[in-house]
Amino acid sequence: MNDAGIVTGVAVAVDGERIVEIGPQAELDRRYPHATRIDCQRGVLTPGLVDSHTHAIFGKPRYEEQELRASGLDYMEIARRGGGIHSSVRDLRGRSEDDLLDLAIPRLRRLAAHGVTTVEVKSGYGLTPDDELKSLRVIRRLGEILPMRLVPTWLGAHEIPLEFREIRDGRSEYVRLLVSTMLPAVSSAGLARFADVFCEPGVFTIDESRTILTAARSAGLGLKLHADELRASGGAELAAEIGATSADHLAAISETGIRVLAASTTVATLLPGTMLFLGKEKQAPARALVDAGAAVALATDFNPGTSPTTNFPLVMTLGVSQLRMSVAESVVASTVNGAAALSLADEVGQIAPDFSADLALFAADDVRELPYWYGDNRCAATWVRGRLCHPSSRDIVPYHQGRALAQGIDRMTSTR
Amino acid sequence: MNDAGIVTGVAVAVDGERIVEIGPQAELDRRYPHATRIDCQRGVLTPGLVDSHTHAIFGKPRYEEQELRASGLDYMEIARRGGGIHSSVRDLRGRSEDDLLDLAIPRLRRLAAHGVTTVEVKSGYGLTPDDELKSLRVIRRLGEILPMRLVPTWLGAHEIPLEFREIRDGRSEYVRLLVSTMLPAVSSAGLARFADVFCEPGVFTIDESRTILTAARSAGLGLKLHADELRASGGAELAAEIGATSADHLAAISETGIRVLAASTTVATLLPGTMLFLGKEKQAPARALVDAGAAVALATDFNPGTSPTTNFPLVMTLGVSQLRMSVAESVVASTVNGAAALSLADEVGQIAPDFSADLALFAADDVRELPYWYGDNRCAATWVRGRLCHPSSRDIVPYHQGRALAQGIDRMTSTR
Repeated sequence: MNDAGIVTGVAVAVDGERIVEIGPQAELDRRYPHATRIDCQRGVLTPGLVDSHTHAIFGKPRYEEQELRASGLDYMEIARRGGGIHSSVRDLRGRSEDDLLDLAIPRLRRLAAHGVTTVEVKSGYGLTPDDELKSLRVIRRLGEILPMRLVPTWLGAHEIPLEFREIRDGRSEYVRLLVSTMLPAVSSAGLARFADVFCEPGVFTIDESRTILTAARSAGLGLKLHADELRASGGAELAAEIGATSADHLAAISETGIRVLAASTTVATLLPGTMLFLGKEKQAPARALVDAGAAVALATDFNPGTSPTTNFPLVMTLGVSQLRMSVAESVVASTVNGAAALSLADEVGQIAPDFSADLALFAADDVRELPYWYGDNRCAATWVRGRLCHPSSRDIVPYHQGRALAQGIDRMTSTR
Repeated sequence: MNDAGIVTGVAVAVDGERIVEIGPQAELDRRYPHATRIDCQRGVLTPGLVDSHTHAIFGKPRYEEQELRASGLDYMEIARRGGGIHSSVRDLRGRSEDDLLDLAIPRLRRLAAHGVTTVEVKSGYGLTPDDELKSLRVIRRLGEILPMRLVPTWLGAHEIPLEFREIRDGRSEYVRLLVSTMLPAVSSAGLARFADVFCEPGVFTIDESRTILTAARSAGLGLKLHADELRASGGAELAAEIGATSADHLAAISETGIRVLAASTTVATLLPGTMLFLGKEKQAPARALVDAGAAVALATDFNPGTSPTTNFPLVMTLGVSQLRMSVAESVVASTVNGAAALSLADEVGQIAPDFSADLALFAADDVRELPYWYGDNRCAATWVRGRLCHPSSRDIVPYHQGRALAQGIDRMTSTR
C-alpha cells in the first residue's frame, strides 16, 4: 500500500470513457495531435476518490444529538431513547421518494465537490419493504441524474425497527422479513449490488448477520458488514468467513480479527471521521491492519447521526494524523482500495490504461497537500467516464482555485 | 457562556460601519425605508468569527512533517533535528517582504471564506530584529490590502534560534536581544498590539517568559502566552500573574492552572485542531475550564507545522465533539470570547447596537449546523465594518450556496 505510483510532469490521454495512455506531455501531444486539451495547470491529478461507505439517503439532519453526546450521553443511550437511527427511520418513512431525491442531490454534489467520483450509498433508514425499496429507487434515480458513479447497497439490517423490538420474537420475525420478503423484492428489482448488516452487540448478532448475508449471497448480491465498531464481537472474523467484499468500521477489532482479515480478500474499510465526530478517543488500528497485510480503505461514512461530512480529503487527513498511515497509504486507501471495497478494482481507482477516466484535480503542488491543508477543499474539478462531473453547470464555479492553478504544465498522480 | 442569545425571524440594521438596531423585519422596514436591503435568505447570521491565534506569515508548507509524525517521530524530536519551527525560520529569512505578502493573501482569504472577519497574526518565524520587523510589516500591509480586521502580535520569543542555541549563554543572549533590541524596535514602529511568548519546557522558561512579557507590558503591548501545550509548567499561572489578555493552548494545564485562570481576566484560548493534526489523544480540559468559570475562546492556530487549517467552523466542530462544549458555548468561544482575547470585546464579536458591523452569513437553517456538517464550508458571505469582505471581487463566487439560500426572510444569531 505504500507505493502510490506517484509521477510528475506527465499528461493523461483519454479516449471516450477510458484512459488510453500516460506519458510526457510532448510525447502525447505528438501522438494525439487532434485531442482536446485540458490544462491541469500543475495541479495534482488523482484517480477520482472512491467513497465506499455512505448512508446518504436520509431526511432531516440530527444536529441535536451532537450536543447530547457532548453533554455525556453515548450513541447507544441516545438510540435507546428513540433517537439515533430510529429518529431517522421515523423521518424517512414520512417522506416521499421525490422529497428524498431532492434532499440527496445537493448532498452528493458536495461529495463530488470534494473529489469523490464513485460513491456507495446504502438504504437502511426505511426498515420496511416499502421504505427500503423507496430508498433504493432514490439511489437508482440519483445515478441517472448525477454524473457520479453510484453503487447501491441494501441495508435493511441497519437496526431492528422499534415495532419489532416491542413484540415477542420480534428479532427473529424481523430477520425472517429481511430474508423472505425484503431481500427477494430488492433482488428481483435489481436495485442493489451489495447487502450490508450492522453487526454489533445490541443490534444484529453474529448468527443473525450470517443468516442474512448468506441469503443475500444466494440472491447474487455482494456482501458488506458493519463490524466491530464499538465492541469486538467477531464481526471481522464473520466477514472473512462468508467472503464479504468489505468489513467496515473496525474501531474495536480484535487481534484475531486483524489476523483473519489480513489473510482474507475482505477489504478493511475504516471510517475515522465517525470516531472524531462521536468524540471517541480510540481509532481503528489502521497501522496494525496495514502492517499485517490487510487491504485498508478509507471512507466518509456520510450519515446524519455519526458522520455528517462530505469532505473526503479531511478523512485522508485523519488517515495520516490519527491512523498513522503514510500519505501514499492514505491515497491508495481512498482510491484503489476503495474501488476494491466495491468490487470495482478493474474499473476505477487507478490512472492507468483501460481504466475508466474517473479523475480528480486538486489545486496543489504536491499530493501531500491533500491531507495537509486539513478541513480545506482544494478540489478544482472531477471527471467521471471522461465527462466533467464537478463543477457542473448547475454548480457555481468553485472558489478554491488558488495560485497553483495559474501556472504551466500538467502533473499527475498515478495510483497503479 | 451557554447563552449565545440566539434569536430568529429578525433583521439587522447597519448604518455605515456600525450595527444600529436588531428587530423584526417589518419594524426595521418601517424605520429605515430608504436602507439598502441584503436578503440573507433564512441563513444563519453570526458575528464575524474571531480567530484570535494564527501564525499566518510563513513561507513553505511543511507537509513532510505530517508523515514523519505518522511514522512515530514527535514534534519535539522533529524540532531537535532542525525541522519544525527552525525550518520555517530558515525559509522565512530567505524570503522578501513582497514574497511573504503574496503567500499570505490567499491564505487569509481562505480564512475569510470560512467566516472569519477578525484575525490575529503573529510574527515568530524571523527571530532576528530584521526578520521579525519584516514579518510585522507584512501584517501591516495585509491590513491595508484586505478588508479583514487584522491584529498583529510580535512573537520574537517563538523559539531560541539555532544560532543562539549553539553558543554559550545563548539563551540569555537571545532574551537580551528580544528585550533590548527587538522589542524597542517593534514598539517604536507601532507594528504590534500584543507580545507573545512560547513558554514550554525546552523553549522559554517561566522566568524568561516573565522577563520578556514584563518588558513588553512596559512598552505598552498587550500580553499573550503559549502556555502548557505539551506539559504543565505553570504557564497558565504566569499568564494570570502578569495579567495576560490570553493564555493559549493549555492542553496540559494543571488543576491549579484551571483554578487560577478561572479567577483571572485572562481568556483561555483553546486550539483543538492542533491536537487533532498532531495526532494527540489529549485535548485541553475545556469542560473543566468553562465549568470553573474561565472565559474560553477557540482559534485555528493556523500555521505550517502543527495546524494548517483555515476552516474555522471545523474548530467549532472540535469544540463540541472533542471538547464537549455546547453549540452555544462554541459560538461564544468563536465570537465574544475571541474578541476578548484580542481586547476587542467592545468592538466586535456581537451583533448588538454600536458594535462594528462585522458579520458572517452561513447557508444553514439552524446555528447547530455550523459544527454539525463537519469539514464542510457553509459560509456564504462576510462583512467587515459594514462592507462586503467575502466573497470579494477578486474571489470567484463561492459554490457553497445550497438550498437554504433559496428561500425567504432573514434569520440571525445575536451573541450578546
